[in-house]
Formats: sequence, C-alpha cells, structure tokens
Amino acid sequence: MTNSTSIPIKLQDRSATEEFVQKFDTFLFDCDGVLWLGSHLLPLVVETLEYLKSLGKQLLFVTNNSTKSRSQYVKKFAGFGIEVTEDQIFTSGYASALYVRDFLKLTPGQDRVWIFGENGIKEELNIMGFDTSGGNDPRLDEPFDVATSPFLKDGLDDQVKCVIAGLDTKINYHRLAITLQYLRKPEVHFVATNIDSTFPQKGLILPGAGSAINSLSYASDRTPEACGKPNLNMLNAIVKAKGLDRSKCCMVGDRLNTDIKFGETGGLGGTLLVLTGIETEERALDNTHGNPSPKYYTSKLGNLYEFTH
Amino acid sequence: MTNSTSIPIKLQDRSATEEFVQKFDTFLFDCDGVLWLGSHLLPLVVETLEYLKSLGKQLLFVTNNSTKSRSQYVKKFAGFGIEVTEDQIFTSGYASALYVRDFLKLTPGQDRVWIFGENGIKEELNIMGFDTSGGNDPRLDEPFDVATSPFLKDGLDDQVKCVIAGLDTKINYHRLAITLQYLRKPEVHFVATNIDSTFPQKGLILPGAGSAINSLSYASDRTPEACGKPNLNMLNAIVKAKGLDRSKCCMVGDRLNTDIKFGETGGLGGTLLVLTGIETEERALDNTHGNPSPKYYTSKLGNLYEFTH
Repeated sequence: MTNSTSIPIKLQDRSATEEFVQKFDTFLFDCDGVLWLGSHLLPLVVETLEYLKSLGKQLLFVTNNSTKSRSQYVKKFAGFGIEVTEDQIFTSGYASALYVRDFLKLTPGQDRVWIFGENGIKEELNIMGFDTSGGNDPRLDEPFDVATSPFLKDGLDDQVKCVIAGLDTKINYHRLAITLQYLRKPEVHFVATNIDSTFPQKGLILPGAGSAINSLSYASDRTPEACGKPNLNMLNAIVKAKGLDRSKCCMVGDRLNTDIKFGETGGLGGTLLVLTGIETEERALDNTHGNPSPKYYTSKLGNLYEFTH
Repeated sequence: MTNSTSIPIKLQDRSATEEFVQKFDTFLFDCDGVLWLGSHLLPLVVETLEYLKSLGKQLLFVTNNSTKSRSQYVKKFAGFGIEVTEDQIFTSGYASALYVRDFLKLTPGQDRVWIFGENGIKEELNIMGFDTSGGNDPRLDEPFDVATSPFLKDGLDDQVKCVIAGLDTKINYHRLAITLQYLRKPEVHFVATNIDSTFPQKGLILPGAGSAINSLSYASDRTPEACGKPNLNMLNAIVKAKGLDRSKCCMVGDRLNTDIKFGETGGLGGTLLVLTGIETEERALDNTHGNPSPKYYTSKLGNLYEFTH
C-alpha cells in the first residue's frame, strides 16, 4: 500500500526498476509532462510503453487536459507513433460529460450545457447526445457589450442546466461575462473539468484551467464540482469501466497535487512521480508542502526502459 | 461613531435626512451604482450634489474603477453636467500608482510597471514618471504562442519591478500568461487596484477586477496588496491629502463589502448605503452576512434632495 509518510524510492538502477514494474499490472499515465511536453515527445517514451505492453501490462491514459476529445487524443498518440484506442483514454472533459450524464442525470436532447472551454468538452457531450452552447462559438470572440451580445438579447437560454468550465485559451471578457450570468442562476449546475492552477509548456509555466475557474468562482461566489484528478469521480469511473484491482495499479504523473494525490487518495498500489513536468527532486523528497509524497520517483518515464535494457 | 451592531437608519423623510446631512462636512461618494450606472446618470444626482455644495459640504469621489484616469473622470462628470476638479477624485488606479511610488518607493524613469488592466492605471503612473508595459499594448491582442510572443522572445524585462492588476475587459490568455511570468519572479511586487468580485452594468452583474485578479493569484500562488476600497491605504492617502476630520466624514456607497466596510473600518463618522447598485434593503438590514451594516441607508442618493425640497 502507498504510505505517504515513507521516503520515496528513487528508481535509478535496473534491480529497483524491475522490482517496481513487476509489482503492478496496470499503469495509469498522466500525459503532458510525462509522455510529452506540448508537441514534444519525451525521450524513450515509445520504447517504455512498448516494453510495458510486452510484459502484458495494461496501459491507461488519464489527463486533466480537456481541450481535446478522446478521439483527438488517439490521433495525437498516433502522431507520436503510439497506438492506443479510445477506451484507454480518460480526459477531464470526458469525465465531466460522464458526471453530467450519470451523476447529475441531465437529459440528452433536452437539457443543454453551457461550455466555458475548448472542443474536448463539447465533443464528448455531443457524442452523448447533449446540445451545447458557448465554448468556441465565434460570436463570443466579439468584444462584449451588454446591449448587443447575442447571448443576452433574447434573455438567457432556459434550457441550460449546467455550466462546464475548463481550460480556455480563448478566454475573454465576453465568455466570462455570459458564463457568470448562467452561474448566477442557482438551478444551473457548476462543473469544473479540473482545477490545475498551471501547466508546463515549452519551458514555461502557463495558467491552467483552475486559474480561469477561480475567476468564475470568485465572481459567482460558487464552488464547482471538479471532475479531473485528484477528484475521485474520475478514478471511480475508470476502476468501474476497467474492473481494476486498485492494489495492482500504479499512477504515473508529474504533479504531486493532482496525479500523486489522485493515486494516493484513490488507494492505488503505487504512485510514480517523474520530474519532466512541474515538480523537482527537492519537492519529491519534501514532506512539508501538504501534498502526498510519491511512493517512487525517477527523473523521466523513459528510465523504465533505459535502466532495464 | 459608527456602530455596526446598531440597526441602520432609513432616510425616508425630511427631518431624518436634514439631521443626517447636518452631521457631516465631507461626503465621500462611490461613483458607479451611486451617481450613475455606466453611462446612465441616476435621478436627482446633480441636484443632490448642488444642494450639498450649497451647504458648504466638501465632496470627494472615491472609486474602485481603475479603467479611467482622474482626468478622464473629470470629463465624465462634466458630461453629466457636474463640475469637479481632479483633486476631488480618487480612483483605485491612482491609489495603486501612489502605493508604487510612496510605499514601494520604486524609482520613476528606472523601475518599470507591468500592467494587467486598462488605461486609468497607465496614465496615473505615466504622470508620475513611471514607464509601463503590458496593459492595452495591441501586441497582447494577438493569440498567445510561447514561440512567437514578443514579450518572451528576448526574455522578460528585468526593469519590471511591479505588476499592477485591475479590471481589464480586454482580458485574454496572452495577457494572463505574460503577467503570470512576471508574478513568478518573487522580486516583482504584486499590486491589485481592488478586489471587487463584480460590478453592476445596465441591469447585469459583471465580473469585476477581483475576478481576474483571483485567476492570477491562483496561478501564481501569490496574494496581491490591494489598494482600492475597502483597503485603508486609499483612505489614509485621502485623509492626509485633504486634512480630514474622520468623525465629520460620511462614506456613501452601494456595496457593503467595499464602501461601507471602507467607511466603517476607516473610522469615518458615518456610512450611507444606497440601493441603486448591488445591494438590497434586505441585505442592508441583515447582520448575518459578515459585512458591516451601514449607519444609514436610503433607496437612492437623489433622496437627499427630494426629501428636503
């Protein structure tokens, strides 16, 4: 069992790495910061995934990135020469759509969802039969004016029963202002894909979904139901869908406060922190920052291949 | 003295209103929601201000709106037929500029300020001799790309010693991302014009400065020094500049958590809540919401004239 008070084990040689790999039959991978950074594949990732597959391990991909749908992810993997199927992929946008359908029990074809975020959310909802509005509607790219906004002219849409908010690099005042109008209706649910404050890209730390969601949350004085890691809605859905034995699962990620917390609070057998994303070795070993410590850590995912070959 | 546990007095007739007016020599007015709503002047405001002036009262205008400079405010007042001078006006943008110069003691002509916000902040800083960057620079209107942003190409500007953040209806991911890069430098100060979560406009409640600032705050894991109401930096500057006797001053506003709190914690002799902005009579009389109660309240500022004429 994961024990957050024990000192993390550093994977830095063959024997420790082989012992680690043998312990688990399922590996759940965060993507950005673990497999790749934006459009840049990290070293030996393909070889590592092939190696684990050759040992009969089940590989699942769990990402808080809601900007892409699962089908877009399949293409992204393929572009890196990694063959995966949609059912291996769980995005926070998909988790949010599942939450709307299975937990809030909104009715497809009748209840509508207002999206503050990118296409990954919309596509998953549309596949489930939900109508959506907001999102990347180009009319929201226009400067906001109370008097002329087409989203206000005939009043708000009464069919909107839920707001889903996620990362939106097209954030602007028009999107924030209209989303706030829906959040001011107490009967409209407020769901967040995830609450990551930042994410790494090309050597920079950029504002994450949680950053814009905090803005909406403060303006509306409401707290959203968050669906992505570390929230366990997502893990429970995966465990159920795949019939997993949690003790034989290891979560691999680059963030203590989402990935490692997700594996730890979800009772998975192990957690592995890689240092190619947001965290440092110092943070991995520091147990005073209020986040769980990983069970294992290593400088990069590719080490699993490198140290064993 | 203001006593937040006493029941607010409703001004609804001549005698109570005259008694109220006689108590004070200086009235500090919030603007939006009190004098006007956006570009719509509220009823009998001109008459009320003339009436108070005719009684020899000093009138000061204290606004958390940082989008306009004091000189722009003089023009706005003039457009409504109200004659005021720049030294009667205190904006949160001006208060932030004063804070940078007099408290942080940054050096004009040498230390630069990065602005997340509109022109009211920039103009006040420029008048004091500070160079600024960010703000409404049109290059920030372009979609953000780590590889091409001109604000990243040659690295961050080392002369930037402070970020001032305020309401920015041109908010976008480019502005948020670059501002975050400066906030990630611990030596760069973080100043907020004000932290209002919302403001009223044409019957709607829109996201305020505090909404975007919360987004930056969450992404950077930093808390800004806030300059506007209810922060007392602003009140202390006004009291000093005008040589005021606090016991003879009354703060007039439409928000409990900024205006009334500002007057109350600043030890002013009185506070008057008007109901033309964000609050209701129910909220004025409710003492369970954690905000101070006003000493007085009335449905609109114009009542001070209407009830006495």
